[in-house]
Amino acid sequence: MIIIGEKINGTLSPVKKAIQERDASYIVEIAKRQSEAGADYLDVNAGTPPDRESDDLKWLIEVVQEAVETPLCVDSPRPQTLADVMPFVKRPGLINSVSGEEGKPEAIFPLVKKYNCGVVALTVDQRGIPNDAKTRVEITRNLVSQAESYGIDHEAIFVDPVVTALATGSDSCQVFVDAVRAIKEQYPKVKITSGLSNISFSLPRRKFLNRSFMVLAMNAGMDSAILDPLDTELMGLLYATNALTGKDNYALKYIRAYRKGLLG
Amino acid sequence: MIIIGEKINGTLSPVKKAIQERDASYIVEIAKRQSEAGADYLDVNAGTPPDRESDDLKWLIEVVQEAVETPLCVDSPRPQTLADVMPFVKRPGLINSVSGEEGKPEAIFPLVKKYNCGVVALTVDQRGIPNDAKTRVEITRNLVSQAESYGIDHEAIFVDPVVTALATGSDSCQVFVDAVRAIKEQYPKVKITSGLSNISFSLPRRKFLNRSFMVLAMNAGMDSAILDPLDTELMGLLYATNALTGKDNYALKYIRAYRKGLLG
Repeated sequence: MIIIGEKINGTLSPVKKAIQERDASYIVEIAKRQSEAGADYLDVNAGTPPDRESDDLKWLIEVVQEAVETPLCVDSPRPQTLADVMPFVKRPGLINSVSGEEGKPEAIFPLVKKYNCGVVALTVDQRGIPNDAKTRVEITRNLVSQAESYGIDHEAIFVDPVVTALATGSDSCQVFVDAVRAIKEQYPKVKITSGLSNISFSLPRRKFLNRSFMVLAMNAGMDSAILDPLDTELMGLLYATNALTGKDNYALKYIRAYRKGLLG
Repeated sequence: MIIIGEKINGTLSPVKKAIQERDASYIVEIAKRQSEAGADYLDVNAGTPPDRESDDLKWLIEVVQEAVETPLCVDSPRPQTLADVMPFVKRPGLINSVSGEEGKPEAIFPLVKKYNCGVVALTVDQRGIPNDAKTRVEITRNLVSQAESYGIDHEAIFVDPVVTALATGSDSCQVFVDAVRAIKEQYPKVKITSGLSNISFSLPRRKFLNRSFMVLAMNAGMDSAILDPLDTELMGLLYATNALTGKDNYALKYIRAYRKGLLG
């Protein structure tokens, strides 16, 4: 599993405060701790208004890449922000994100090619989040073919099939799982990633739904997740699922993670 | 999910001590607490030597059925013990267990018929625990056809496909899941149950492997589990998985369990 650490996000209040006060110490701490906990990429998202976002994100990027060697997953809904900050990224990992929305592929794929990094591709377009697996696969097909036209390899594409809230439809998880299987069948080298918390929106004790969703999505072929690597209960379940689904012979990675103190 | 509460088992030291001292209070407490936590059956297992087992198990049965209305899952490896104690069971739920070992079906199925209860059927025979799904399905087929000859309904058979330790084979979970799917396909009315802790034998932080295994087995069609219903973290994941796999419309059971305080 490829872990994208989610904690450096300006919509979370301690990060928001740190950005406002240009207090690097908290950011450095969660950058280091996520890296030590096994994050393969660190998501950096300023979450501030358009007029401040490029400056704030550039500051975050500089603080984080000073602290750790882990490649960044540079996260903004605005292509202009991404274009503004990418020149300052020393170890470009992923751009988060492209989607099927009008203008997005044309704005984002050239950056992915220029900075020779990967990209998170949301199966969303101007119609919003699809309710079915079929449309998610269709949007993926369009995005992959556009990425190809920019010379981007399948391996660099992290499709996020965008799970919807269980509270809005009892088949949310099943539709996601069906989309994962169909996308992996058509594009075995394309990676699948996802956040875990959308599924549980508006329900109580969200952690249980998030965790079970992770296990079911990994079982369907999800290769990556955007999550909190400091949640050792979640990470324990992740390593266990890896071992149970045949991706960790002799449970060696599980045992290694245990010895490193990464399992709760 | 049909929950079989596992805590009244003489191999666990507080239960062993309570049996030795004929101290009903601890047994009554864990019987009540498991029932309140949603156990559909309470497993009762004396775990004592052959010369004492019938007496000890009879005592356990009488203590438990005095305390709660929950039907019992009467558990012994010895058919003679089961024959000795079944006349004292007021609410026979399950007999635990029959298997393909020589003499077992002939000894156990008549009891199941006589007491009009269900039975846990282990996919084990004189050759031991099979390494593959195919042999597990074969043993199931033999057991189901013998059960039929005693007039036992498919609904009353809880097949336990006996998961082996992950440490002894990286495909343990996959083989189990394959067996579950194949058995459910051939016998849709037969139920599947399992203990959760065999999978993690000899590995550290066993809870993560047990929990992930439960999610994956439920996803494959497991209808029941023998578990600790007082483990609210496990139960939270169980209710979550039920909801995510389409067995709990609008997450109503999940929300009800939350309101009852059953989720960790």
